[in-house]
Amino acid sequence: MKIGRFGRDGVISFGILDADAQEWVILKGDPLFAGYETTGERVGIAAVTLLAPVIPRSKIVAVGRNYREHAAEFGNAVPEEPMLFLKPNTAVIGPNEPIAHPGGNVDYEGELAVVIGRVAKRVTAANALDYVFGYTAANDVSQRDWQKSDGQWGRAKGFDTSCPLGPVIETEIDASKLGIQTRLGGAVRQNSNTALLVHPIPMLIEFISAAMTLLPGDVILTGTPAGVGRIEPGDIVEVEIEGIGILRNPVVAA
Amino acid sequence: MKIGRFGRDGVISFGILDADAQEWVILKGDPLFAGYETTGERVGIAAVTLLAPVIPRSKIVAVGRNYREHAAEFGNAVPEEPMLFLKPNTAVIGPNEPIAHPGGNVDYEGELAVVIGRVAKRVTAANALDYVFGYTAANDVSQRDWQKSDGQWGRAKGFDTSCPLGPVIETEIDASKLGIQTRLGGAVRQNSNTALLVHPIPMLIEFISAAMTLLPGDVILTGTPAGVGRIEPGDIVEVEIEGIGILRNPVVAA
Repeated sequence: MKIGRFGRDGVISFGILDADAQEWVILKGDPLFAGYETTGERVGIAAVTLLAPVIPRSKIVAVGRNYREHAAEFGNAVPEEPMLFLKPNTAVIGPNEPIAHPGGNVDYEGELAVVIGRVAKRVTAANALDYVFGYTAANDVSQRDWQKSDGQWGRAKGFDTSCPLGPVIETEIDASKLGIQTRLGGAVRQNSNTALLVHPIPMLIEFISAAMTLLPGDVILTGTPAGVGRIEPGDIVEVEIEGIGILRNPVVAA
Repeated sequence: MKIGRFGRDGVISFGILDADAQEWVILKGDPLFAGYETTGERVGIAAVTLLAPVIPRSKIVAVGRNYREHAAEFGNAVPEEPMLFLKPNTAVIGPNEPIAHPGGNVDYEGELAVVIGRVAKRVTAANALDYVFGYTAANDVSQRDWQKSDGQWGRAKGFDTSCPLGPVIETEIDASKLGIQTRLGGAVRQNSNTALLVHPIPMLIEFISAAMTLLPGDVILTGTPAGVGRIEPGDIVEVEIEGIGILRNPVVAA
């Protein structure tokens, strides 16, 4: 199922996309916490404004250098263990919302995002997927000058609008082998497959939850493939993940 | 005023400590969002269990190497601009709650914490303090092996229980010149003053809010002075800040 979060007439709702992708079946609450009870109401997809499908209450855990060819393009080794950093929920924007370019050298980084559905503490890779609610696309927008000068990436990858998420959460998909593509102004810049993740999703969940408890609504950004590059105000950047959809964001000056 | 958050009979409340520090004046809600209306009820301090005075809804922004002598003790230069990293709210524990030692080399880091009271976006240092709700003590507990091997500090400073906060939030204090002391088993290990912050609080708020919007309940850890050192299961670590109080936590094996 494809779960969306959207606004209409000033009200935020969650819905399930119907089979022909023309209407949202409205849910009574956030399915992460309230399940899938519907209001009985339907609304056409053109009648709503899509929002980020989840705003993490606790954390976004991101993984650095988790595709071999991306690590190589910056001359980095692939870390033996996942390299974790955090992005704040104030960085989250939804589909079509503008990325506010803070100046300097800013890159897109298309990524598969995992949305956690159940409290996960010290889970094993073998049953890690039981804790997953679904998957969405993400852009781990990065200010490269700050990333270099600061050393720690809190600012470079934590500024407002640096975490587009969407367009929907797909709850029924095998995420171990999905095409992932990033396009800039329609031109393909990243073109890879989640099968190439150095540390695959079950292992990431085991590793992260060994140190920090994952809560429902927490998001894991699984890393970006090779082909990262600059964005500038006026650009349109799209992250497409097979079976999930296209996360499209314009870039504006902050 | 000293604001506390505490549990009794399974209910969590907020309160103001009365003048002789013997009773809590119970508040109707979280003063960060609901103001200071009281229920009229009072409860003796011995009748409650103190909890972390705030659980950030959005983020804990921490500042690395913000006391000259601490940077020097690890052979690091003082960064020209604040070095920011994030800790997740799942790391927060309150006074007397155990720090779960994850094994390896783990250090205490006593710090002054700033609690944000109003939405702060691109504020200037000149009026930054208008956005502060109050101050508390923090321990930026750090797993040094992970810190070294991972490069990014998400895991090393983000594991469960790595962010003790408390005992209370002091809302009426000049935080620019407060004694700060960390004791291990009663022996003084860190002994400094917030006047020695390389980047003082108003400047930190200006710098952080230029990149990321600060929300009410967000916490800034301002950095640790010289004298950091190991903790082991069985230890008791105390961070005392003048005018705020003592944040005391036992250490246990995870």
